[in-house]
Amino acid sequence: MTDYIEPRVLKGFRDFLPSSEIARRDILDMLEKSFRAYGFVPIDTPILEYADILLGKGGGETEKQIYRFMDNGERDVAMRFDLTVPFARFMAQHREELYLPFKRYHIAKVWRGENTQRGRYREFIQCDFDIVGSYSAASDFEILLVMKNSLELISGGDDSGGITIRFNHRGLFNRFLSRLEVMDKSVEILRTVDKLSKIGRQETESLLKEQIGDKAKYVLDYIEAEGSFEEKLKTLNKAATGSDTEKCPEAECLYLIHQFMLDTGTEKTFALDPAITRGLDYYTGIVFESFLNDLPDIGSVCSGGRYDNLVGLYTKPGQGPSVGGVGTSIGIDRLIAALETLGRLNPKSSYAEIAIACIREKDSGLCQALAERFRAKGIFCEVFLDETKLQKQYVLAEKKGLEWLIIPKEETADSQLKLPLQYTLRNLKTRENQEKSEEELLSFFSR
Amino acid sequence: MTDYIEPRVLKGFRDFLPSSEIARRDILDMLEKSFRAYGFVPIDTPILEYADILLGKGGGETEKQIYRFMDNGERDVAMRFDLTVPFARFMAQHREELYLPFKRYHIAKVWRGENTQRGRYREFIQCDFDIVGSYSAASDFEILLVMKNSLELISGGDDSGGITIRFNHRGLFNRFLSRLEVMDKSVEILRTVDKLSKIGRQETESLLKEQIGDKAKYVLDYIEAEGSFEEKLKTLNKAATGSDTEKCPEAECLYLIHQFMLDTGTEKTFALDPAITRGLDYYTGIVFESFLNDLPDIGSVCSGGRYDNLVGLYTKPGQGPSVGGVGTSIGIDRLIAALETLGRLNPKSSYAEIAIACIREKDSGLCQALAERFRAKGIFCEVFLDETKLQKQYVLAEKKGLEWLIIPKEETADSQLKLPLQYTLRNLKTRENQEKSEEELLSFFSR
Repeated sequence: MTDYIEPRVLKGFRDFLPSSEIARRDILDMLEKSFRAYGFVPIDTPILEYADILLGKGGGETEKQIYRFMDNGERDVAMRFDLTVPFARFMAQHREELYLPFKRYHIAKVWRGENTQRGRYREFIQCDFDIVGSYSAASDFEILLVMKNSLELISGGDDSGGITIRFNHRGLFNRFLSRLEVMDKSVEILRTVDKLSKIGRQETESLLKEQIGDKAKYVLDYIEAEGSFEEKLKTLNKAATGSDTEKCPEAECLYLIHQFMLDTGTEKTFALDPAITRGLDYYTGIVFESFLNDLPDIGSVCSGGRYDNLVGLYTKPGQGPSVGGVGTSIGIDRLIAALETLGRLNPKSSYAEIAIACIREKDSGLCQALAERFRAKGIFCEVFLDETKLQKQYVLAEKKGLEWLIIPKEETADSQLKLPLQYTLRNLKTRENQEKSEEELLSFFSR
Repeated sequence: MTDYIEPRVLKGFRDFLPSSEIARRDILDMLEKSFRAYGFVPIDTPILEYADILLGKGGGETEKQIYRFMDNGERDVAMRFDLTVPFARFMAQHREELYLPFKRYHIAKVWRGENTQRGRYREFIQCDFDIVGSYSAASDFEILLVMKNSLELISGGDDSGGITIRFNHRGLFNRFLSRLEVMDKSVEILRTVDKLSKIGRQETESLLKEQIGDKAKYVLDYIEAEGSFEEKLKTLNKAATGSDTEKCPEAECLYLIHQFMLDTGTEKTFALDPAITRGLDYYTGIVFESFLNDLPDIGSVCSGGRYDNLVGLYTKPGQGPSVGGVGTSIGIDRLIAALETLGRLNPKSSYAEIAIACIREKDSGLCQALAERFRAKGIFCEVFLDETKLQKQYVLAEKKGLEWLIIPKEETADSQLKLPLQYTLRNLKTRENQEKSEEELLSFFSR
């Protein structure tokens, strides 16, 4: 036992002071509002689960990074490292209580014991949204549309350089690899192609040559297809089917998605990019990555795709239908860092617009009564609570980023005599003062 | 390795399905908005901390219930069991970066390995708000005012039976105990009095007699003081000071708080209750508990008080000023359970008001274009994504609690010919249909 403990946080963990937390919350609030507008609904799951649930069939990286321990009841438990695995468990467990298609979002913390030297955190927020139980191109497109609108909203709308979402169809690529008779190497090929933008064309080519010899040439032709959407799609379809005229179902899907882009006037945001594969095994259909046009180098801020069977591991073989879906995850930390770099975070230290100074503590009830009238109108108003020098209260108001300070005039009020307070309204930026009665203040701020 | 893992959650942990999560989020959203209106700002801290930070000087109950383990770097870590201890560490660590008084709220999960048989959960949300660095009665009152308005807001406003907040001054009680020369027994006395409403008068009396013999009578007189606010305060002040006329500082504080209640017209919600002591050691000034008038038996849904030195343990002796404050914690789970019992939760399965049916998948882009026009006006509109029987889409819309379904008329649209879609608007409650063009729909819902 000691009388002093040094205040500190664990490596890779962070405190959020008000200005950072307000910036983060503003972004999350905007995202939530956007998801809700499309009919997505929130769920929540425990942060602690049985370790076997989270680790599933196991996997080297995950197992090394997960926070896992024995609880007081000798259960083998772990903290979630993503929101996808708990969602899969959730869907399998509550299948009977939910309707399909089910559109959910989940914004919550996850934990990974990663190497913090790469600028990564061990505690961070994930923001996922998925449509499960629908297999239509319309659902693929809706995920893309929500991505576009949500990212535009938080990255500064029309004033910003905008975003680009690159999409592709993993199934079409697989069809092409089958035709090329290299499906047995598909995982390695996908991972190599996924690294193209990082390692460059030459390195990609030599890696592919190691993997599939002379056939590397065809893969490079495929992932470098050029032209308009229609031209690219024609090239890819031909590579996958050998036909100039008949579209395979995967090409049909891409064609339909493109039609939806034209119908919504959003086509400029999207680019068919046959080099987008996403490294992960479980994608089977459309895959996508998204970039801020003003800061493409930070990489994709929102990626995802279509997967086949979310609930497989948690459903007894032969006992339940598979549930496929399409979904994506927004990298909140990366996005916030990017917006900060671009000077597009709006840092503020308070939600209040106005404060009422404390001249005599005994008038605090009357000041709160005035403030309540503002709050009832949706105008956030703080009441200062300590009799300190007025100069100090100016400084406090400025630190909080307030524009206006209402200063009760000394000795004007008397609760016993029912005399109302009179006020000076100070603009903290121009330092101009105006005399106002309570009613005048209310009408001034109700503009 | 297995191919099937039974989907399940740990005992004491819960999934939140959309209707429960939406109800919970609605309440938290209202609370946040209320805190922000008074100038409170959010912070965030890690859920995992060094165990010594969280356990401090240790303590039997906490140590038994905390989730504690060695992380992969052999650090002794634990999951937070409340938001107060991390806040104390936060204030000590960031003192230089913050201004005082500092008004923060924090709504986040905490974990305790409690006995779940008492209907308690091992993972639950705490909602705390505090003013630190202010020692005025005005700050005591502000906490009470925020409690009143926040609880009224979420418990149904004027339509509900309202709430009652019982308050008292621990310092005044201590002054009385000193005068009675039983301060050495103060902790036991406080805990006994705290149990009054649970164990009844007789049991309280016999416990007090065990503790302080014949002096029990005076304690009972004190905690049972009756009359108007002024009469009670006079009784308590006399018991604490021996004087009929001179008020001690603690009585002055209560007097001022009562004046603030009168000035804001809120006095009916509050009751001076000398039997409120709060069991915990660290309160030094005002203490309070709050009750739903329609369901008082569930106990206090929001309690707290004034404490002396939040940062003590994390500040080197003699190296920094002490930081006192006043704060409170809302029991979200208990409150939600109560509102459910009272039928005051508004269960909904979606935020959307309208859905557009999917008649032909290829029209999905046009449907999204219409929906985007609704969303731009703040009207949440979902687009159904699968070509299924219309009857099935009615059922889906009803399950989501939607009132309106917009049904595109088959074969009216043609993107090539630029023919717009025509629509049938169906009221899902009355089952009445109306024919509408896109513009008519927009003006119908923009009422």
